[in-house]
Amino acid sequence: MLYFENDYSEGACKEVLESLINTNFESVTPYGGDIYSDRAKEKIRLECGCPDADIYFLVGGTQTNKTVIDAVLDRPEGVIAAKTGHISVHEAGAIEYTGHKVIELEGVDGKLPAASLRKYIAAFDGDESRDHMVFPGMVYISHPTEYGTLYTLDELTELSEICRGRGLTLYLDGARLGYGLMTPGTDVTMKDIARLTDVFYIGGTKVGALCGEAVVFTHNNTPRYFFTKVKQQGALLAKGRLIGVQFDRLFTGGLYYEISRHAIACAEKLRAGLKEKGYRFFSSSPTNQIFIILDDEKLSSLREKAVFSFWEKYDDTHTVIRFVTCWATREEDVDALLALM
Amino acid sequence: MLYFENDYSEGACKEVLESLINTNFESVTPYGGDIYSDRAKEKIRLECGCPDADIYFLVGGTQTNKTVIDAVLDRPEGVIAAKTGHISVHEAGAIEYTGHKVIELEGVDGKLPAASLRKYIAAFDGDESRDHMVFPGMVYISHPTEYGTLYTLDELTELSEICRGRGLTLYLDGARLGYGLMTPGTDVTMKDIARLTDVFYIGGTKVGALCGEAVVFTHNNTPRYFFTKVKQQGALLAKGRLIGVQFDRLFTGGLYYEISRHAIACAEKLRAGLKEKGYRFFSSSPTNQIFIILDDEKLSSLREKAVFSFWEKYDDTHTVIRFVTCWATREEDVDALLALM
Amino acid sequence: MLYFENDYSEGACKEVLESLINTNFESVTPYGGDIYSDRAKEKIRLECGCPDADIYFLVGGTQTNKTVIDAVLDRPEGVIAAKTGHISVHEAGAIEYTGHKVIELEGVDGKLPAASLRKYIAAFDGDESRDHMVFPGMVYISHPTEYGTLYTLDELTELSEICRGRGLTLYLDGARLGYGLMTPGTDVTMKDIARLTDVFYIGGTKVGALCGEAVVFTHNNTPRYFFTKVKQQGALLAKGRLIGVQFDRLFTGGLYYEISRHAIACAEKLRAGLKEKGYRFFSSSPTNQIFIILDDEKLSSLREKAVFSFWEKYDDTHTVIRFVTCWATREEDVDALLALM
Amino acid sequence: MLYFENDYSEGACKEVLESLINTNFESVTPYGGDIYSDRAKEKIRLECGCPDADIYFLVGGTQTNKTVIDAVLDRPEGVIAAKTGHISVHEAGAIEYTGHKVIELEGVDGKLPAASLRKYIAAFDGDESRDHMVFPGMVYISHPTEYGTLYTLDELTELSEICRGRGLTLYLDGARLGYGLMTPGTDVTMKDIARLTDVFYIGGTKVGALCGEAVVFTHNNTPRYFFTKVKQQGALLAKGRLIGVQFDRLFTGGLYYEISRHAIACAEKLRAGLKEKGYRFFSSSPTNQIFIILDDEKLSSLREKAVFSFWEKYDDTHTVIRFVTCWATREEDVDALLALM
Repeated sequence: MLYFENDYSEGACKEVLESLINTNFESVTPYGGDIYSDRAKEKIRLECGCPDADIYFLVGGTQTNKTVIDAVLDRPEGVIAAKTGHISVHEAGAIEYTGHKVIELEGVDGKLPAASLRKYIAAFDGDESRDHMVFPGMVYISHPTEYGTLYTLDELTELSEICRGRGLTLYLDGARLGYGLMTPGTDVTMKDIARLTDVFYIGGTKVGALCGEAVVFTHNNTPRYFFTKVKQQGALLAKGRLIGVQFDRLFTGGLYYEISRHAIACAEKLRAGLKEKGYRFFSSSPTNQIFIILDDEKLSSLREKAVFSFWEKYDDTHTVIRFVTCWATREEDVDALLALM
Repeated sequence: MLYFENDYSEGACKEVLESLINTNFESVTPYGGDIYSDRAKEKIRLECGCPDADIYFLVGGTQTNKTVIDAVLDRPEGVIAAKTGHISVHEAGAIEYTGHKVIELEGVDGKLPAASLRKYIAAFDGDESRDHMVFPGMVYISHPTEYGTLYTLDELTELSEICRGRGLTLYLDGARLGYGLMTPGTDVTMKDIARLTDVFYIGGTKVGALCGEAVVFTHNNTPRYFFTKVKQQGALLAKGRLIGVQFDRLFTGGLYYEISRHAIACAEKLRAGLKEKGYRFFSSSPTNQIFIILDDEKLSSLREKAVFSFWEKYDDTHTVIRFVTCWATREEDVDALLALM
Repeated sequence: MLYFENDYSEGACKEVLESLINTNFESVTPYGGDIYSDRAKEKIRLECGCPDADIYFLVGGTQTNKTVIDAVLDRPEGVIAAKTGHISVHEAGAIEYTGHKVIELEGVDGKLPAASLRKYIAAFDGDESRDHMVFPGMVYISHPTEYGTLYTLDELTELSEICRGRGLTLYLDGARLGYGLMTPGTDVTMKDIARLTDVFYIGGTKVGALCGEAVVFTHNNTPRYFFTKVKQQGALLAKGRLIGVQFDRLFTGGLYYEISRHAIACAEKLRAGLKEKGYRFFSSSPTNQIFIILDDEKLSSLREKAVFSFWEKYDDTHTVIRFVTCWATREEDVDALLALM
Repeated sequence: MLYFENDYSEGACKEVLESLINTNFESVTPYGGDIYSDRAKEKIRLECGCPDADIYFLVGGTQTNKTVIDAVLDRPEGVIAAKTGHISVHEAGAIEYTGHKVIELEGVDGKLPAASLRKYIAAFDGDESRDHMVFPGMVYISHPTEYGTLYTLDELTELSEICRGRGLTLYLDGARLGYGLMTPGTDVTMKDIARLTDVFYIGGTKVGALCGEAVVFTHNNTPRYFFTKVKQQGALLAKGRLIGVQFDRLFTGGLYYEISRHAIACAEKLRAGLKEKGYRFFSSSPTNQIFIILDDEKLSSLREKAVFSFWEKYDDTHTVIRFVTCWATREEDVDALLALM
């Protein structure tokens, strides 16, 4: 079977696993007070160019999103997101569970256009009954998006300016951040993200770790009681070292970038091959997710030999499917998949 | 000043006020256990043709919506509504505060089309990742809608069939129900609503009462602990008689319908006059709300002599405004308003 | 039947009712923007000696408590209360519904002793795992308490000093405030309360109004978005005038105090009579609530002629019951009740 | 430094670590759909003697508690626990965050006595105002308790009978279950727990795993939508295999019991040594937690050479501290600690 279903089907990349093995029997302070967590934070601060950044390690993406969003927002505030955003669709209402509305705006190819945001804000600010409405408090974007697309530096800068001008927190979900940063042609760096957003997270689960996401508050803007809020959400790991050790390793010697680059190289090869074979693409994703529109008959036969994601029905006889590469993808599997198609 | 801003600018209609005066000094059981509440419930059961209906009196609309919706839904369930629904826009996130997503579908003139609902359900049911999504649990409609429009009996029946076929609770927000029922040309009766929905409320606040809404669970389907849930929401009135007495009177001798009919007659006169004068209508509302598109200059001058609602900007030089008639509207004020315009 | 069950069995006191009648047909701004609400606020500011106090009118007690507490507290903060406090026992978990723990301390006769509070704070502040615990954010007291008792000025001052020294919001639930202020022997005035607390509410429902409570933020400390938070809680009345008119009247010519004084006079008469007859008292309440321990046989026979509250089982053959007087109590009923016993 | 602070200072026990290493590069179904999770569930079902048990793997204790409790309870229901229960004290209000009250009863040495429970239920059921109160819906116990104590089979049976007789869900928090089961003298087995409770969890984090707890619904009583509720809580691991693999190994060849037995043996040695040296014990814990009352001077000097937990101040000159042994404790460290004291 060929696995292209997602970027979380394997365990950890081998260097990370080795670090876990090497540190396993050391007795360390629990709840993230260990030396590995400290070191990982220091390395991430350097990567971000934010000596004052405040960093927390959480376990998974939905958990991170709900914890950050609820910690930042006041009660009647909502978070603006593209309709296709992860928090809008695939978190089982986790954000609403915390009491906050996800204000869904039409996106384009997974991205939230600055124009949509401006329009929404202008309408809200001009509405005489706005005191009876959910106030915008935060803007959520993902980079790469759920459709694999990337913001340009100009787009990110514009969103950032709108948010700062209007007092909105800009939050970037970086579940697949490594893959985004390593995509040829992107002009967005980790330092840009740290400079332009108020809070973001660096994804570990999908980029080489067993689990774990690193939340970065970029400018001394950590919400009050944040540690306790993490605990209250059930998101505090007793053995915080589990994530600290992994991020410490991922940000040593550029490992995070290196394994991401591998995934992107595999994706580029696969994309080029599919293009050559004449497949239609559903999204312009340049990252490790590839969406194609497949004939339903082809779909059935492909399912016998490869694992991939159903995305949505395209029409009566076609389906959108997704292939994903990751740090664990083997080049020979890309070849084999291409041979199959 | 001419008041056409809304249907809640005056106190209670005079018969309701008299009932409050007449019963004021009687000592009665609190929390809705009084004889007037009992009588009102019995009369409403008759009106609904539901001898087994379970009825509760709450204070206001948003409170009623959040209490009913949260009482009915399981945790990961959301409520489907038109994008323009009251719960979607003008309840300050009250539904999300209870932890539930409002799943917003495109409406038409304030209404939720059966086709949209079917399409959404088909997509959800066919989605392989639906266990990671908010489950549809309820459908919310308002009748009349926020745009003053009405469902036809066919439309309501179709929505009801979809809901029953899929196990969704159909909930009708009747904040202005009286006005809807008394609109010439409607083929929907109170009994139809009771038969086709699972729960609905009969609005008092906007139809002659000082405050109060009557929630009707139509077929022995009251959620467990509902009384306590009302209390927990802060929606239980110590002096429940205040609402009981009012509904008892409203449903005696057809008063609820009679005062509604008056409002509709005023609206029809106003609508005809505006049409004659060539004003453009923004909605096809046949009820007590009239939406017109006004030149912004006209708007400023009109504001000096009349009170009405800003609805939304139509374009750079025009605005949508709303005139509302109600049980308290005086015919001479309609004439005066028409003379002004 | 003789009614001594509670102080919310009748409608409104006659002067309040007259004001509602007189203003009923005026068209006013909804949602509390009316002139009567404004006037009432101005009068209350005067009574409180707080020219800058910010005042909001809500409908009932539980609703007010949950709205204020949730608006003030940050997520992992709880509210400290006596174990017998209304929010601890009789609000169906309304506070927990908002996500906040009621930190229950042992009280004495319904009151929260300063010593208990100090001890709790010292233990919390000295606990090395306090970041894993609910942080104290507010202190809730009721005055009169649920047992009818009153704080002395010294006690209130001490609680206030502890709270200010520790950054805790002091919140006073004044559901029966009028009765407390008019009790002979009390040295606590409205101005003292306004000076010593951060937020409190003046009860209307139990003191002459059909419904309504006036929340007073005493020193420019209204939480951000408070109006919208009230709306989000379902606590915003469309016809805000209903409460504004009533409080405007209650605080004209000292009516609030006058009707409270009547209730206290009736209670004193009843208390003296019961004492004379040798009944045992369960609480030292000097206000309008009287708790006695009754033989269960006596209880049954009394129930045929009088309505009163079951409070709790005292032992196998005795029960604690509560008699309540109010603005509506007739002196002859006190005599009749005494004759019965 | 000697580590006796807790049972979560090290990584995973070596056999578990090996399983993680051996399976690391296999591509498996995410979200717990992998073969290792399936196998682990099958083995746990066998251990429990519940062929129909439904099992879910969550990440940590607080998360498990809030997810299970909120999934089981209806809105106005609360969970009864000892005042010293983990959910009462050390979960930062996580349960209240879900909207449910923790109804705290006085415990004895960490345990909830059946008599307290009976008394509370009788009072609740006899209270005429119970519809205004939080309804009891669940009973939470921990085994071992936060004080290291254990229920006897008789005690557990009695609690179970009370719960079944009254329709309360009995939930057992087994964060340290292995240690409890391996304590000499206990007459409670895994099968007893599965038979007597409605839901419980088998702790992995504190018993040899990097993270992970196994929730067991014992008799086809899994709440509706439980998978989605786990997701909504942010408690669903993308790489569910991480926990599946660990529990698969823990329940192969009795490993879970074996490593627990080692911890208990260390604890017994330490306890005996402390006793011999005349130290005063604060709790009668027979398990892997030992609580002693220490002179504050001794405390300071001990801190230079050993790591342990501050528990609470005992009096002005004494402190309660806790030593914890676990699967990772080395016998020579026990000797060294005893030598120190």
